[in-house]
Amino acid sequence: GGIGSKLCGRLVVEKKKTAIIYLLPALDGDLKTMTFLQEVVDILLAYITESFDRETKVIDFHYPNELLQRNNWELQDEPETLDDILISCRATLKYAIKTAHPRYFNQLSTGLDMVGLAADWLTSTANTNMFTYEVAPVFVLLEYVTLKKMREIIGWEDGRGDGIFSPGGAISNMYAMLLARFKMFPEVKEKGMSSVPRLAAFTSEHVAAFNEMHQTGNVIRLREELSHFSIKKGAAALGIGTESVICIKADESGKMIPADLERKILEAKQKGFVPFFVSATAGTTVYGAFDPLIAISDICKKYQVWFHVDGAWGGSLIMSRMHKWKLDGVERANSVTWNPHKMMAVPLQCSALLVREEGLMQNCNQMHACYLFQQDKHYDLSYDTGDKALQCGRHVDIFKLWLMWRAKGTIGFEAQIDKCLELSEYLYNKIKDREGYEMVFNGKPQHTNVCFWYLPPGMRYMEDKEEKKKRLHKVAPVIKARMMEYGTTMVSYQPQGDKVNFFRMVISNPAATFEDIDFLIEEIERLGQDL
Amino acid sequence: GGIGSKLCGRLVVEKKKTAIIYLLPALDGDLKTMTFLQEVVDILLAYITESFDRETKVIDFHYPNELLQRNNWELQDEPETLDDILISCRATLKYAIKTAHPRYFNQLSTGLDMVGLAADWLTSTANTNMFTYEVAPVFVLLEYVTLKKMREIIGWEDGRGDGIFSPGGAISNMYAMLLARFKMFPEVKEKGMSSVPRLAAFTSEHVAAFNEMHQTGNVIRLREELSHFSIKKGAAALGIGTESVICIKADESGKMIPADLERKILEAKQKGFVPFFVSATAGTTVYGAFDPLIAISDICKKYQVWFHVDGAWGGSLIMSRMHKWKLDGVERANSVTWNPHKMMAVPLQCSALLVREEGLMQNCNQMHACYLFQQDKHYDLSYDTGDKALQCGRHVDIFKLWLMWRAKGTIGFEAQIDKCLELSEYLYNKIKDREGYEMVFNGKPQHTNVCFWYLPPGMRYMEDKEEKKKRLHKVAPVIKARMMEYGTTMVSYQPQGDKVNFFRMVISNPAATFEDIDFLIEEIERLGQDL
Repeated sequence: GGIGSKLCGRLVVEKKKTAIIYLLPALDGDLKTMTFLQEVVDILLAYITESFDRETKVIDFHYPNELLQRNNWELQDEPETLDDILISCRATLKYAIKTAHPRYFNQLSTGLDMVGLAADWLTSTANTNMFTYEVAPVFVLLEYVTLKKMREIIGWEDGRGDGIFSPGGAISNMYAMLLARFKMFPEVKEKGMSSVPRLAAFTSEHVAAFNEMHQTGNVIRLREELSHFSIKKGAAALGIGTESVICIKADESGKMIPADLERKILEAKQKGFVPFFVSATAGTTVYGAFDPLIAISDICKKYQVWFHVDGAWGGSLIMSRMHKWKLDGVERANSVTWNPHKMMAVPLQCSALLVREEGLMQNCNQMHACYLFQQDKHYDLSYDTGDKALQCGRHVDIFKLWLMWRAKGTIGFEAQIDKCLELSEYLYNKIKDREGYEMVFNGKPQHTNVCFWYLPPGMRYMEDKEEKKKRLHKVAPVIKARMMEYGTTMVSYQPQGDKVNFFRMVISNPAATFEDIDFLIEEIERLGQDL
Repeated sequence: GGIGSKLCGRLVVEKKKTAIIYLLPALDGDLKTMTFLQEVVDILLAYITESFDRETKVIDFHYPNELLQRNNWELQDEPETLDDILISCRATLKYAIKTAHPRYFNQLSTGLDMVGLAADWLTSTANTNMFTYEVAPVFVLLEYVTLKKMREIIGWEDGRGDGIFSPGGAISNMYAMLLARFKMFPEVKEKGMSSVPRLAAFTSEHVAAFNEMHQTGNVIRLREELSHFSIKKGAAALGIGTESVICIKADESGKMIPADLERKILEAKQKGFVPFFVSATAGTTVYGAFDPLIAISDICKKYQVWFHVDGAWGGSLIMSRMHKWKLDGVERANSVTWNPHKMMAVPLQCSALLVREEGLMQNCNQMHACYLFQQDKHYDLSYDTGDKALQCGRHVDIFKLWLMWRAKGTIGFEAQIDKCLELSEYLYNKIKDREGYEMVFNGKPQHTNVCFWYLPPGMRYMEDKEEKKKRLHKVAPVIKARMMEYGTTMVSYQPQGDKVNFFRMVISNPAATFEDIDFLIEEIERLGQDL
């Protein structure tokens, strides 16, 4: 790098009267700092107003190479002025995706809650780490209070149990798998997998099923990769291996078939595998299906297998009196993943892992780092949570959820969730018999996922089924690309199993309205009619 | 929970004129939203000014049970008003630790950079996820630009290689171990550890060495837990087992002894273990020692073992022309952990893993989730980075580092780092011959870690060595507890090996000055003189 070839840094900094030198902690830096931060806030407030305005684009899309050209993004040896910094902030937001936009439906996490945002600004300002009570007294307490509340809602007696906020659902699921393995074979911690028989984990083939597509010449082959993305990733990382993740058949609407689970458990045992972990899903990524938790828990109990519920997406429905029945049986789980950053629209990231057994997380992950967790501290050490997880430092993800909960109350979250489900039912009713639409699965969706194909007029009466399929497969990608180029809306698509590319509409954005759903349909038809 | 026993949520919300209903996305919510966010910002700006004021306390400390009583932290069914929300924000900050305070020295991550803070506020406002270019175009590009720059500085040709920002150093180190294992035994991904011989990983006993202390009656036993906290945690999680982490002897100043590494590698091979991973440390947690990277890399090359450098704490010294020699040899590493949230004072969290071999991260971790990583997208898919890591969603940690870099330039980071090292040298010179102080190791520290005992006057001439040791062990905890009760400063302490509790002073806070170091010494003497 060019570091070695320059004049003394400090001299240059002073000569150019640049960004950092007059800001706090500089002497008399207060005024300059307040002015600068206020200018940034003004930029952010303007961006927020714009984000909620339907007249603005969801995204000002540019291809990577083009975006690289559009601005100077390079890092230099020399500092910039504060004015340049403000320009960079504006440029970054200009090309950012407006995830708060009422017509942004692309991901499971959408929307921007104003109280959650305020809380996140406060979190950044407090700039601390969750590992000990000593360095994050309030946040550690709030995590304690909130996890207890979440466990009460799950249905665990007096909210007893344990838990942690982790960096996302995939890590929460991996932590659960780690606990399940440690519970059955505590010696794995010291001796590794060589001390353990071959393990088997089970999850629905439909759980966020994913596919790898190969285009070989003219032939489109769909190779089905069965099983959950994060469960497989976890198994690979933990040294269990993806082949030990056994996929359970799902019914037409994407729910795990309990009889197949029992069959596969027996089969695995016969082959010498030790079943240790079943991950049932409450709200699959693509279909939004809820596995039958009670039946699954009975099987787990019978075969003494850890019962995990991955409610990253659907767990929040337990906040709704109208929809919580979909999670019946979750109270029997050994562990539950629940991501408030999805259906509760808490700013990213906010993922909870709830664990029934107290003390297990500590035993599984602790290494007694005395420089952090001094046992002779002067306060109750049960609040030093850092040794419960693999991470040492842990980002403060709790405050935004806690403050939103205070602002809305449980009933506010309920109203918000109910409204999103109402919107998705509206969408479903609108398109299920509409010309040019085909539903990917029959019946009313259980979550806000509505999966459908749009058939452009020219394709509706095609005779050649294979040719039709092949052409249909290309429709959603083109419409999506056009959506992004116009910047009017965004919705996800994917293939699944033998089903070619279809749209997966999800609604988690509290800003969306019936009119936005109407708009989405009009836009798909406008952008797809010539295909 | 009480969800089931209330009136309809929405009715109650409207009746109480509460927090959420008038904020965006509510119709005409703009004014109310802007007013609310501005009020929050005013609270934050006041907190920032206060944090840098030496007249304020670092912490208004209360024991957990007392803090629980001091405020109503509970979550309710009913919403609160916006005024209540502002009160909660103030209460949270009142009891928070002021990590920006010039006299807060407790952790490796201290300080609050104003440009970094502004960037983090922007990141929260943009509220997106790093997994694809589609949902985070600018941030994905900035990660690309910044990682490339970091690799150039490391010394990799043209900045080639790969990398990712992960949720902290422990996860970065675990990712490195995962890559090393996959590189040597790619079949582990599918087949798990049962397809792999017993592995051995190596790290310095002194690398953040930690201890477990038992007080049995009057006898204090120190059981040395040899090896790195995160390396052991990683080995436990990955199914390798903590017994496979082999500790290499360190010299008196905490540096790994290369000859012992070679001996232990040979020993492990003789026992049938396959050495796969050496983690050298650039800046140990307690002593701040830098392992001799060149000698270690030669051994790694000879035995074809993955050479990882854990520079979470000390990696940033490569930004300094004066101190970068301490990292000589890092350019030979297969992977490097480097946490800008430590010595570069980037707001938490910001941890980079740099990887020399291109494509390996993708091969190791990818599972082809088609609902995210559609191969028929209309842009260059190499920018969809989500499949490089275990996480699916990934928090945007890049923008604060990038914007700070723009504001300071490389030379600004250099000046900041040099200043912290200058302060620690000042501290070292001040106490090394001062009455009542004993250094834990001889010689000038290589990083900002200064490790020392303070002996209260009554203990200085004690004859009984064992009794003296026993009493000395209790000094630092009492002084620390008093510091927290007075709230004047905070510094860490811990035992190490057979060494009883000592202070570990670290300086990463750009706000600290020579006077703050003087103050720390005065405060230790004031609070400890009667012990």
